[in-house]
Amino acid sequence: MTINLKEDERLDDLQRNGYKLIQNTKIFCFGIDAVLLCSFTKVNEGDKVLDLCTGNGVIPILLKGRTKGSRFSGLEIQDINVDMAKRSVEYNGIGEFVDIVKGDVKEASGIFGEASFDVVTCNPPYMNENHGLKNPDSHKAIARHEILCTLEDVVREGAKVLKPGGRFNMVHRPQRLTEIIGIMEKYKLQPKRIRFVHPFIEKEANLVLIEGVRGGRPMIKVEPPVIVYESAGKYTDEIASLYTG
Amino acid sequence: MTINLKEDERLDDLQRNGYKLIQNTKIFCFGIDAVLLCSFTKVNEGDKVLDLCTGNGVIPILLKGRTKGSRFSGLEIQDINVDMAKRSVEYNGIGEFVDIVKGDVKEASGIFGEASFDVVTCNPPYMNENHGLKNPDSHKAIARHEILCTLEDVVREGAKVLKPGGRFNMVHRPQRLTEIIGIMEKYKLQPKRIRFVHPFIEKEANLVLIEGVRGGRPMIKVEPPVIVYESAGKYTDEIASLYTG
Repeated sequence: MTINLKEDERLDDLQRNGYKLIQNTKIFCFGIDAVLLCSFTKVNEGDKVLDLCTGNGVIPILLKGRTKGSRFSGLEIQDINVDMAKRSVEYNGIGEFVDIVKGDVKEASGIFGEASFDVVTCNPPYMNENHGLKNPDSHKAIARHEILCTLEDVVREGAKVLKPGGRFNMVHRPQRLTEIIGIMEKYKLQPKRIRFVHPFIEKEANLVLIEGVRGGRPMIKVEPPVIVYESAGKYTDEIASLYTG
Repeated sequence: MTINLKEDERLDDLQRNGYKLIQNTKIFCFGIDAVLLCSFTKVNEGDKVLDLCTGNGVIPILLKGRTKGSRFSGLEIQDINVDMAKRSVEYNGIGEFVDIVKGDVKEASGIFGEASFDVVTCNPPYMNENHGLKNPDSHKAIARHEILCTLEDVVREGAKVLKPGGRFNMVHRPQRLTEIIGIMEKYKLQPKRIRFVHPFIEKEANLVLIEGVRGGRPMIKVEPPVIVYESAGKYTDEIASLYTG
């Protein structure tokens, strides 16, 4: 199948089922955080999955390739991303399983209905008002900074759209761990599993993966650390296997 | 110096300044948690340190050996432990620096006064009412289960006895992380540093080390993981160095 890429776009191989993804190099290209979130998230056969802040749609497309979920929805507010994600879904021929919806994460439960998903995923903007910001209107800034939605917005809406016992999975910055846990508890998404991601084994964590269960009991598992590099430029086996399928 | 050990007691070498510790094998012998807590805790020159639930006094004695703090107090409720800890302090000739006080952790701020320490340490009983318990009156059960004090008691009293900006350091079970962070925030001990301890790199964490600063800003560092064993029976270099000084 041929594809007409628009300005600043490129087509990347997702190393999974032959799926490809259209990305705009000027806005946001997915990184290891999206790949790790997909690997961390448990999706059972038949599960309905919603990805909040889906951007170019990398997470629902990857999860369609990796799991036996029945339906993968992605919610995105920026038109330029919605357009790219929809074209990637079409290009991969998975429109029967993956739908990209334009809309505001703050209204997710109104758009999709309450208690309607088994799993929610989210790779939200990491940075809050404590971080300096030059161009608050740019597509890139919206992907990275809490301009159009906050941590509390995604947790609140994630909790609402989940069925009881449903699982909320997020990747974020460990610096905000206290706040993340506090907000998840506030909305009854009990943290149950957590993994910290360290670039090297002797370095501080720079990402955290966390699963909260709607209405779960308070008892959390701290899973083995993810170590990204064994030595400079050389991935650990775990990370290498994520990129080679 | 000779020493008369009582029934079930033994004298262990702390591998630090030649210090020795009297332990009762029927009650509680210190483990890697106490050693890791001492290594994790930052004590600056001249700091006044209080150890809550000090047991046989291993933490104040080890911290006296490892740091330049000016004064190390240990609070303990069980007479049999107070007696052992006092004899260890005397045996090591460090009575000028280390004092063992008999008393209830729930009254620590009344005993020592509010805002009177730079650092608080605590290796509290880990298990709450969710864990089965056969002999709630035994010395061992009191050391392991929340019979005479709860997590909230040690955090509340720790916060009260600390000066503003003072540092609370605790070792606990990661399963209770959500509760630990919630209670620390409740008493304005803002979590600032955290380390998870994994027996092997591919295993879940079984201990967590956490530092909270009285009145700090919410921004936490997840430090490199502590890995205890490199392979079965072989400590990693970090752990081996803790035991050899």
